[in-house]
Amino acid sequence: MSKTPKQIDHVAILPETVPFVGPEAQERALGKIFAARIGANENVFGPSPKVIEAIKNAAKDVWMYADPEALELREALSEHHGVGVENIVIGGGIDNLLDCATRLYVEPGVNVVTSAGAYPTFNFHVSATGGNLELVPFVNNCEDPDSLLERARETSAKLLYISNPDNPMGTWWDSDDMERMISSIPDGCMMLLDEAYIDTAPAGTAPPIDITNDQILRFRTFSKAYGMAGSRVGYCIGEAGIIRGFEKVRNHFGMNRVALDGALAALKDQDYLAEVVGKIADSREKIAEIAEKHGFKPIPSATNFVAMDCGRDSAYALALMKGLAERGVFIRMPGVEPLSRCIRISAGTAQDLQIFDDALGEIIAEIG
Amino acid sequence: MSKTPKQIDHVAILPETVPFVGPEAQERALGKIFAARIGANENVFGPSPKVIEAIKNAAKDVWMYADPEALELREALSEHHGVGVENIVIGGGIDNLLDCATRLYVEPGVNVVTSAGAYPTFNFHVSATGGNLELVPFVNNCEDPDSLLERARETSAKLLYISNPDNPMGTWWDSDDMERMISSIPDGCMMLLDEAYIDTAPAGTAPPIDITNDQILRFRTFSKAYGMAGSRVGYCIGEAGIIRGFEKVRNHFGMNRVALDGALAALKDQDYLAEVVGKIADSREKIAEIAEKHGFKPIPSATNFVAMDCGRDSAYALALMKGLAERGVFIRMPGVEPLSRCIRISAGTAQDLQIFDDALGEIIAEIG
Repeated sequence: MSKTPKQIDHVAILPETVPFVGPEAQERALGKIFAARIGANENVFGPSPKVIEAIKNAAKDVWMYADPEALELREALSEHHGVGVENIVIGGGIDNLLDCATRLYVEPGVNVVTSAGAYPTFNFHVSATGGNLELVPFVNNCEDPDSLLERARETSAKLLYISNPDNPMGTWWDSDDMERMISSIPDGCMMLLDEAYIDTAPAGTAPPIDITNDQILRFRTFSKAYGMAGSRVGYCIGEAGIIRGFEKVRNHFGMNRVALDGALAALKDQDYLAEVVGKIADSREKIAEIAEKHGFKPIPSATNFVAMDCGRDSAYALALMKGLAERGVFIRMPGVEPLSRCIRISAGTAQDLQIFDDALGEIIAEIG
Repeated sequence: MSKTPKQIDHVAILPETVPFVGPEAQERALGKIFAARIGANENVFGPSPKVIEAIKNAAKDVWMYADPEALELREALSEHHGVGVENIVIGGGIDNLLDCATRLYVEPGVNVVTSAGAYPTFNFHVSATGGNLELVPFVNNCEDPDSLLERARETSAKLLYISNPDNPMGTWWDSDDMERMISSIPDGCMMLLDEAYIDTAPAGTAPPIDITNDQILRFRTFSKAYGMAGSRVGYCIGEAGIIRGFEKVRNHFGMNRVALDGALAALKDQDYLAEVVGKIADSREKIAEIAEKHGFKPIPSATNFVAMDCGRDSAYALALMKGLAERGVFIRMPGVEPLSRCIRISAGTAQDLQIFDDALGEIIAEIG
């Protein structure tokens, strides 16, 4: 009999598999490289050339740990957002910061509210801390503030997660709606507002940042519009005392030094960001056209992807996704009904979308 | 009264300060850049030029997430160590992997054994999960296998941490001693063998890797001899079922893509590694000479640093460290008595060590 220690109870019951199989693993299984990589909501247009230059320049410094306070980037973000440096904590992407937030507040017996089909990595972190997930349905393809708030009240939830714009549907609420939601956060609850996709949303989507409110944390990233997914830099904005709490659980020397230099260069090149956001908007339109051409319904999106309602069930969407993969196109689909009637296409180059368009036509011809 | 949720009990009691203030924060406080950065056991000789080239080449790909399975690097490590890819998990440095290990096994009420004054970041992770730290003293400047094992038995500890060679003293046990220790791990206990400094140790320090033993995890890093601290790449080797457990808690899309390419290049350039290890050995000798010149006792080291016994108390060592900082020299010292009678100097260039030597002479002349 094994003498190895037992994993703690709420971890022992977790699966060893995860929701997202990487495109590389799919490529290995298929025996070929994807011709169009438009599944992970990466930014195919890439980061600013200044980011690439900053990374190259930082390469020689890689023998040094990064500044654990990441002060230079925090100061730049502080100026950018008009908040104090004490209101910002840097992490290895939003994933890492959501993980930190769950570790501050969640243990077995704690309720956490999110939407069924919303970002699975958040759920993954909650489960790892033994928290109980309370799931409310999307309404009209949107995460629904009212039912999220109601469930949070009913269950005395400590955390309430919402992404705006949302993933995987791409829908969004405007600033007024969000402000109304923020004003109704129940006592004893922290709202985690994931704004990974805010940079591609219409002006007026983000509610003003109120650093005096200790019931909301805002999560931002360099992975999407800034085109730096592989760098793993995100940040969280909140009331100073709450942000200080992250010091208790974050990996202080965990940031990649080269990535921090890249993020700083990205932030400073807002012209490039605007240019890329334009390209993403054009790509969204093109994806919507392709959807309609094939009889699918594109769901309006404020993100760097478009979910398209394929009009049938998840089995059909899954068959489309698999058929696309076999034809060299990496996409994803929502994992939970009724969202899983859709497939989700990330913004791509004209060539990516042509390949997608052609492949989609072929599969539909094949499977109906 | 604040309506923010309470942090969970075992996190609420933790300090918001951390043991390691970064050199950058010290530079800001001093108003100048360190002339010699020899405090964080970084590798001043830097990584292989091929690593720098790999980082530069990968810069353009930074828009893509890294392969969450990091298969290419794991395959290379598998070949390097003669173990299966299923025996290796990659993480953001050893810190991140120690964090994962504590999350698998530790919760409030669980005992964890380590040495008083050993790696504080491990303790930080244990505390964040609510575990109880059982500390045993160093014996003759060494982490002491016998007393660690005895305390683990007495307290039914689930984790036992030891670093070999050790930090902050630089001492080490040879392979036979380690094998004897491994053969005595108590039932229900997992030994975490931190081998961050193994690459600079004499041949025969590392015990053979036994991937059938599910009571030991071996931690390695690209941060030290490989000169990539700022990249944050480490790995853990263990029995396949235990390694699979990490899938439950690790941040799957958390690795920096550029860093993985760099680590692969580093691993492939073993000639460069050997060259750097030689430079580090020379530097250790030079540090020992400087210690003796000033009447201090260098402690034999198998790492990329040398601890020197300053022959008095922690207040004296602290005064030396502060005086050195004021003179532009970043070093560290152990945080716990009796180790804290020492200062710890990382391997440096000839210039770094000249600056250190001069500054040390000045302070001793000043404070006696």
